[in-house]
Amino acid sequence: MARWQPGTRERLQAVSLRLFAEQGFERTTVAEIAAAAEVTERTFFRHFADKREVLFAGQEDFVAMFLDPVRTAPADTPTIELVSRALEGTAAFFPDERRAWSRRRQPIIDSEPSLRERELGKLATLTVRIGEALRERGVEEPGATLAAETAVTVFHLSFQQWIAPDEDRSLQAIARERLDALTALVTPSQNGRTGRS
Amino acid sequence: MARWQPGTRERLQAVSLRLFAEQGFERTTVAEIAAAAEVTERTFFRHFADKREVLFAGQEDFVAMFLDPVRTAPADTPTIELVSRALEGTAAFFPDERRAWSRRRQPIIDSEPSLRERELGKLATLTVRIGEALRERGVEEPGATLAAETAVTVFHLSFQQWIAPDEDRSLQAIARERLDALTALVTPSQNGRTGRS
Repeated sequence: MARWQPGTRERLQAVSLRLFAEQGFERTTVAEIAAAAEVTERTFFRHFADKREVLFAGQEDFVAMFLDPVRTAPADTPTIELVSRALEGTAAFFPDERRAWSRRRQPIIDSEPSLRERELGKLATLTVRIGEALRERGVEEPGATLAAETAVTVFHLSFQQWIAPDEDRSLQAIARERLDALTALVTPSQNGRTGRS
Repeated sequence: MARWQPGTRERLQAVSLRLFAEQGFERTTVAEIAAAAEVTERTFFRHFADKREVLFAGQEDFVAMFLDPVRTAPADTPTIELVSRALEGTAAFFPDERRAWSRRRQPIIDSEPSLRERELGKLATLTVRIGEALRERGVEEPGATLAAETAVTVFHLSFQQWIAPDEDRSLQAIARERLDALTALVTPSQNGRTGRS
């Protein structure tokens, strides 16, 4: 067996997801995953710290996807525009090619309380980090925390829709629609306006 | 020992909270709670299904507090006004007299993963129920779910502030401030407006 080869990581991920789905996350061992992927356990552990990490790899990249557009925005960018930029950044992390993986991953997360808790923890961490990034830009409380919560809520709802069975729009398009819906929600008085500022 | 007397429920709650804080939630038994409250275990179980229920009693009242103002609002009430009414309803469930209890309860919840999960589950259920109530009133998706998420987010952030050490404003006042901050957040263009509609 080759000790390192291109595609090993992806194969380990694909095999893990299949085994988790077939026999349950808890009942699947790293030994089984390695065997099914035709690598040694040692090779598995060069790619992932444990079987859970197969499902949660890339957390830092995921957070960076939200934070980079916030950090690099011009100084006078309104807070809601920072939220919008953060959400636009999701397109880079969740391109359409990734949707099949995300669709198969979700039922595994949902089936196991410890994985659900980890997933919620991931979103909670994201909320904290976005709040920090906004405060670093001078956004004051409670606005910074509200904006961070709003960004993560819109992301989460959009992501759920993105992996829904018949959905084919991009995550970016769905997130934009959700953010527009939120804006419409909290500004009902605009219904009676001409729209001119 | 009296088998039933006024104040027993409140005494069981106070004693439970003290024991949970002193010796941990998991390590505290119903027998200890009953003994410290000077009632039989049988009496404990007439008030609470188990020791966890001491911390989560009143879930249905809690949900009703949000839903009743939504259900009883006039037919043409804007969605954001329904959210605002739901939040106003919190004043009834969390009066200032309750703040000391809530302040002591929170570290116990935070200390125990299973309690944290139950607490998050409570908020998730609340979100689902508010979404249902909004859809029953004809609010369409994704607005209904976004409004429900917004209501629960604003409630949760306001509640955290309400139990913060130096806070003395009412939950109602804090929630109103947070909802106003959210409105300001998503309508930045109003900065350049005269405010006339």
